[in-house]
Amino acid sequence: MNGIAVNEKNHLVFAGADVTELAKEFGTPLYVMDEGRIRENMRLYRRSIEKFYGGKGLVCYASKAFSCKEIYRIAKEEGIGADAVSAGELYTAIQAGFDPVNICYHGNNKTDRELAYLLESGVGRIVADAYDELDRLDELAGKMGKKPGILLRLCPGVEAHTHEFIRTGGIDSKFGFAIELGDAMKAVRLALSKPNLQLRGIHCHIGSQIFDSDPFEHTAEIMLHFLDEVRKETGVLLPELNLGGGFGIRYTEEDTPKPYDGYMEQVSRKVGQVCAELEMEQPFILLEPGRSIVGEAGITLYEIGSIKEIPGIRTYVAVDGGMTDNIRPVLYGAKYDFLLANKMNLPPARKVTVAGRCCESGDVLGKDILLPECGRGDLLAVLSTGAYHYSMASNYNRVPRPAVVMVRDGQARLAVRRESLEDLARNDI
Amino acid sequence: MNGIAVNEKNHLVFAGADVTELAKEFGTPLYVMDEGRIRENMRLYRRSIEKFYGGKGLVCYASKAFSCKEIYRIAKEEGIGADAVSAGELYTAIQAGFDPVNICYHGNNKTDRELAYLLESGVGRIVADAYDELDRLDELAGKMGKKPGILLRLCPGVEAHTHEFIRTGGIDSKFGFAIELGDAMKAVRLALSKPNLQLRGIHCHIGSQIFDSDPFEHTAEIMLHFLDEVRKETGVLLPELNLGGGFGIRYTEEDTPKPYDGYMEQVSRKVGQVCAELEMEQPFILLEPGRSIVGEAGITLYEIGSIKEIPGIRTYVAVDGGMTDNIRPVLYGAKYDFLLANKMNLPPARKVTVAGRCCESGDVLGKDILLPECGRGDLLAVLSTGAYHYSMASNYNRVPRPAVVMVRDGQARLAVRRESLEDLARNDI
Repeated sequence: MNGIAVNEKNHLVFAGADVTELAKEFGTPLYVMDEGRIRENMRLYRRSIEKFYGGKGLVCYASKAFSCKEIYRIAKEEGIGADAVSAGELYTAIQAGFDPVNICYHGNNKTDRELAYLLESGVGRIVADAYDELDRLDELAGKMGKKPGILLRLCPGVEAHTHEFIRTGGIDSKFGFAIELGDAMKAVRLALSKPNLQLRGIHCHIGSQIFDSDPFEHTAEIMLHFLDEVRKETGVLLPELNLGGGFGIRYTEEDTPKPYDGYMEQVSRKVGQVCAELEMEQPFILLEPGRSIVGEAGITLYEIGSIKEIPGIRTYVAVDGGMTDNIRPVLYGAKYDFLLANKMNLPPARKVTVAGRCCESGDVLGKDILLPECGRGDLLAVLSTGAYHYSMASNYNRVPRPAVVMVRDGQARLAVRRESLEDLARNDI
Repeated sequence: MNGIAVNEKNHLVFAGADVTELAKEFGTPLYVMDEGRIRENMRLYRRSIEKFYGGKGLVCYASKAFSCKEIYRIAKEEGIGADAVSAGELYTAIQAGFDPVNICYHGNNKTDRELAYLLESGVGRIVADAYDELDRLDELAGKMGKKPGILLRLCPGVEAHTHEFIRTGGIDSKFGFAIELGDAMKAVRLALSKPNLQLRGIHCHIGSQIFDSDPFEHTAEIMLHFLDEVRKETGVLLPELNLGGGFGIRYTEEDTPKPYDGYMEQVSRKVGQVCAELEMEQPFILLEPGRSIVGEAGITLYEIGSIKEIPGIRTYVAVDGGMTDNIRPVLYGAKYDFLLANKMNLPPARKVTVAGRCCESGDVLGKDILLPECGRGDLLAVLSTGAYHYSMASNYNRVPRPAVVMVRDGQARLAVRRESLEDLARNDI
């Protein structure tokens, strides 16, 4: 894995830092992010648009994967946009000095208060998801003297599941207007009729953790044909196409992601070809990668505590975190690679179950994990925890959420402070 | 359901309060707790020990089900103890003025820092879960000049799943010392050998959401026989038996809980009978109900937003909350009853899917829910959300956690303030 090495003390080195030093300085559990890797991933996407698509596009980091002020600062410095899905994400981005004009804002159920906040903030693109959202947005924009840029979330009829995709799937969704049911065209006509909305294009998102470019290519084709239909039926060529995200990452060796610029290369070729066939100007393209920017760039460090051997059944190795900082194993059956970070020279010794510290039997981070001999005080690293870990963390059992540390060239700095006991009861009366 | 009524405006009345008024005053989503019901449940357990067991016991509210300062104040006023599973829960209880001597403290992986905090605070009973926990606790207690009361968490070999139980199950657990493997007796000997620990008894917990008294009765029998063995082998009669919790509640009509005092009645009879057979003094009994005290005493109020009809497939009714305030449908496949709280006179009209507002397709609170005709601005109530909802809530999508309101005789007061956007980024640097 990128960013991983071992030093002369047989300690895991991540992003140039000895993780045992990080654990000492910042405590455990600890989320550690490789800033260099994050920046590299952001650049990879940005450059792929430059290289394969003449720069006619914008990468919007899907910040629900990992949202805190620092990540918006990094995205800003790397010259990319962001995708936000709540007032909380937008607020955090703004606090970090991120320009809202580079934000693409999503949501299947935006409240009036939220819409007012979007308009006030000057969000660049609002991805509308329902007919009455267009009505309400138009009315509100009129009152506020604004004319926001709008994309319409469509269901292209493609649903991708990791290694396969369904060409007629994806209609049964709480999100978007289905093309094949006529809703998409109806929404376009409605949006075009609104004096206070500036309809800029269409958006789709076909799934998560996808390893194959084919569904993206296929989807781009469907969306372009829809833009052509819109042109024919309304006389308007919508200039923007947002293809969403969903690019897969490596959690364990079972996962085999492609280089991320490969998506853009393949999709660009397809877009060029279809647009030529349709005699249509190539649209401005937006991409929304989240997991693939931060996922593999993060690890979680835990201190090992009690070890329970049940002869003939199982050995439980308990760590000082669990489902509160990583809900994915219990929620999605997610799997991870584990490393004994302070004894990287030891050979694998036995299979163990890594248990969390929550008062819940199901709080297990990994089953049948091959680890070296280990004991209390050893440091365990879980790889690829940069996306949907901190962002999904809870205070279940009133456990404080871990700190997040950004590491760049071996230098670590806090990005998010560890919650204190006082924080836990801050809103209690 | 208890505490539920309808007023002349056809509004849902919960705990004596018109919930549309609560939504207006406190906003949505909103957790509403029926304080009277909570107190009644606490008393029911306390009185069942008085009535059927001569008062020789203590009910400890399992606060991981719902933890905030106010619930510890209520437990204190009702004269019951509490069960805590983290420094955060203990801290909150102490802040609320709860006497730590009435706290039973759990955890499969207690850190040294945590143990020091327990000893410092004067927690009444520490439920030890590992051999080295006993070593560390003894050493630390010696240094600090303390002699804490200890219970040992045992695996009795009974595992209950709702309507059935397995008599030889429950050994493959991250928790406790198994009786049948000899670990339990070994732990007793170790604890008795420690000069700074006061071994008071044994603890077990056989599962969650159990509707039948038989597994509890069976477990009590096993635990009493173990106390007898301990007496025979060591000469010490341990005075306390903690039978844990796990009493089932009603989420939907599929669930058929018994009256909670029925457990104590049946278990008391069994304890009396077994102790008579063994010629053993009846132990002091502890119970740890959590869900059954607060679960049915809570509802969640949501405002309905966008409604999406997909002809022939499904209608999605989106609310302004979702998996951030209720992770149980996606985590456990949990089911609920839903009420259109501002139009209680309307007849059921159609089956809908209630979707949350999170940017995740799986964020659905209920499938095929029979609701009356409804639209934007209507108020939806979800029943039996008092346990494991607020306590498991997250800020996924950077969505602020809802407020919690306590209602008593129609009078509402805030128990937990709604999180603000500022709260979300408070620890961001």
